[in-house]
Amino acid sequence: MNVVELIERKRDGGRVEAAEWRTLMRAYAADEVPDYQMSALAMAILFRGMADEEIEALTTAMLESGRMLELGHLKVPRIDKHSTGGVGDKVSLILAPLVAACGIAVPMMSGRGLGHTGGTLDKLESIPGFRTRLTLEETAAQVERLGVAMIGQTAEIAPADRKFYSLRDATATVEAIPLIAASIMSKKLSEGLTGLVLDVKTGAGAFMPKLEDALKLAHTMIALGERRGCPTVALLTDMDAPLGVACGNAMEVEESVLCLRGEGPADLREVTLALSAEMLLVAGVASNAVEARQLLVRALDGGAALEKFREIVRAQGGDERVVDDPLGVLPQAKLRHVLTADRDGVVERVEPRVVGRAIIALGGGRTKVSDEIDPSVGVMVHVRPGAPPKRRCGGPFGWGRPLRWRAP
Amino acid sequence: MNVVELIERKRDGGRVEAAEWRTLMRAYAADEVPDYQMSALAMAILFRGMADEEIEALTTAMLESGRMLELGHLKVPRIDKHSTGGVGDKVSLILAPLVAACGIAVPMMSGRGLGHTGGTLDKLESIPGFRTRLTLEETAAQVERLGVAMIGQTAEIAPADRKFYSLRDATATVEAIPLIAASIMSKKLSEGLTGLVLDVKTGAGAFMPKLEDALKLAHTMIALGERRGCPTVALLTDMDAPLGVACGNAMEVEESVLCLRGEGPADLREVTLALSAEMLLVAGVASNAVEARQLLVRALDGGAALEKFREIVRAQGGDERVVDDPLGVLPQAKLRHVLTADRDGVVERVEPRVVGRAIIALGGGRTKVSDEIDPSVGVMVHVRPGAPPKRRCGGPFGWGRPLRWRAP
Repeated sequence: MNVVELIERKRDGGRVEAAEWRTLMRAYAADEVPDYQMSALAMAILFRGMADEEIEALTTAMLESGRMLELGHLKVPRIDKHSTGGVGDKVSLILAPLVAACGIAVPMMSGRGLGHTGGTLDKLESIPGFRTRLTLEETAAQVERLGVAMIGQTAEIAPADRKFYSLRDATATVEAIPLIAASIMSKKLSEGLTGLVLDVKTGAGAFMPKLEDALKLAHTMIALGERRGCPTVALLTDMDAPLGVACGNAMEVEESVLCLRGEGPADLREVTLALSAEMLLVAGVASNAVEARQLLVRALDGGAALEKFREIVRAQGGDERVVDDPLGVLPQAKLRHVLTADRDGVVERVEPRVVGRAIIALGGGRTKVSDEIDPSVGVMVHVRPGAPPKRRCGGPFGWGRPLRWRAP
Repeated sequence: MNVVELIERKRDGGRVEAAEWRTLMRAYAADEVPDYQMSALAMAILFRGMADEEIEALTTAMLESGRMLELGHLKVPRIDKHSTGGVGDKVSLILAPLVAACGIAVPMMSGRGLGHTGGTLDKLESIPGFRTRLTLEETAAQVERLGVAMIGQTAEIAPADRKFYSLRDATATVEAIPLIAASIMSKKLSEGLTGLVLDVKTGAGAFMPKLEDALKLAHTMIALGERRGCPTVALLTDMDAPLGVACGNAMEVEESVLCLRGEGPADLREVTLALSAEMLLVAGVASNAVEARQLLVRALDGGAALEKFREIVRAQGGDERVVDDPLGVLPQAKLRHVLTADRDGVVERVEPRVVGRAIIALGGGRTKVSDEIDPSVGVMVHVRPGAPPKRRCGGPFGWGRPLRWRAP
């Protein structure tokens, strides 16, 4: 295949056929197409976009470059959630056990921190012993047994996407909406789902700060899911401020445990319930939003979700005492610093990117793939935009006094 | 330096500063910046363009990645010509000795065939023994002695451009006007010129078929020359049909010799005279176009240009009998085929790209850098658009009956 001609065609606004995408991605996964051609192609796509048929073909090509999770024999619906990422977004840690507690299989494959955002895998790994690297067979067995597993993308899942993704990260081509959609969906579709709920973030802390871009991404992924026979729903949720109070790996695990006990910040609980309700609806486990919410609140406040979380931690080798005594188990920062406002006034904004970057700068995230993470690093953001004057502004870096929030 | 941030800035329509271009190109020439980042940057530039200051900075950065031809001690003007390339464009072979015969130093650095077009170096090398690989010292000495040298870009000249150019060729980013301008000008300015004349081709056989693109390229290069203190003039010339009759390396050398004898096709002679006249004017050797033309016609029809060509061939190791008996020296094709029209009519178009690609397909050009060329391959295009009905259409592949054209 003539890759230059293909780049040229894309560059000039033309269309690449399904068979060509398949050949291209297969050759790329086999190291037969050089990175420098793929990065030029990615940049051309960033400017020109892709037709729906092309996005589907690319997604299928990446999906087929690897293996699928085999769950077709399970009798229950298999639903996952994907978030486009934000600061303080620990929803997955609560939602996966919560939805599984309602009888839905949740084969959840998550990622690591990316840019200024945190990643579910990094958070989970701050629980001593917790293994996120399960094989596909282990994952399938655990989903069959517990109804849920929380794992990372293995080398077997969509290897072409894996390779293309890290190239895009190094060439400023992450932002291309068709490529974001294809990347997300190639991984999610490899989980063999019967439905998918997307949490598309919008606002200053989202990868797509503009609402119209977030909408476009949502529409693209919904169309892609439908084309591939996987009913897909998207919620656009706010990432104009950090979600919840805790930002940073270990601190977010603690806040997730609080939430699983029916406590924790109201915004976190609300986003989690909203996304979980969509999963119940897509699965057909609830017939309407009111019923879905009732089921979920019962599982959350009644302790079933927390017990499911305990099962996950235990099954994946983690220290299950984290469920009863998070502060006794999770790593805690030695240094703490309280930031207070130097004058009276109203909080106008809490910039999620600034919070996210501060965590990375303090060692709680990566600037390159090989960086080690200090899971104890984090920021407790006690203020919200619109907070009244004289309210205490800022919180401790590290652990400080453990917070106990109640949903209002 | 953060190359991703720099690509991102360019991608979003921002500006890269002169110091950044310098650092980037130095690092790229030293293999410290990967090709995949440079190709993404090139594609972003293709879509976003570059400000004049950026083009100058990039040109300077590429120029300074290598050495310059040291000709500052010569008392005569030093002028070169550059063509953006076409089919049958053998102007350099005639123009270099012609202008040198008028007392101007012509340190001409040319390229090889590119895409569907031929290259001066390939043409010259069809003369047995002709060496185009001179060192900068040999070149300077020959220019001092004969007033002219015809060489290829050495590894010492703008190595960053050399590397970037072959990358662009493999990533469909050749067409970016700012990059074309910077590439051409970084090489030309390294010749230490006092003036430059550009032959910017337009029409179906040009790399920029659209007139507006050709104009933009011309303006960009003129501005660049002026900024760098090298007075630059551009002529836009027609490449909607092959130039002259002979297309193919050895055949074009023969036609050049004819033209140097005052014979040859009228269009070739006209384009050569027009460009040469501009060189005389830029050099200040002639004070107006009429005077320039008189000087040139005298040198061409009086034999001085032909003798200068003989000196070049001799100095660079070629068989100088090519001047007196081209057919006795140049390689000739064994197979010949005459194409005739299968019905009466008027010739509407002679597609230069089709002719150029036919020559490549027959082995007279390259599809990859390592390809060997058969210099005897070529097409004699006897017809022009608008030719009368029943006129013989097509000519022999290879040599056939040698043509003898007289300028009408």
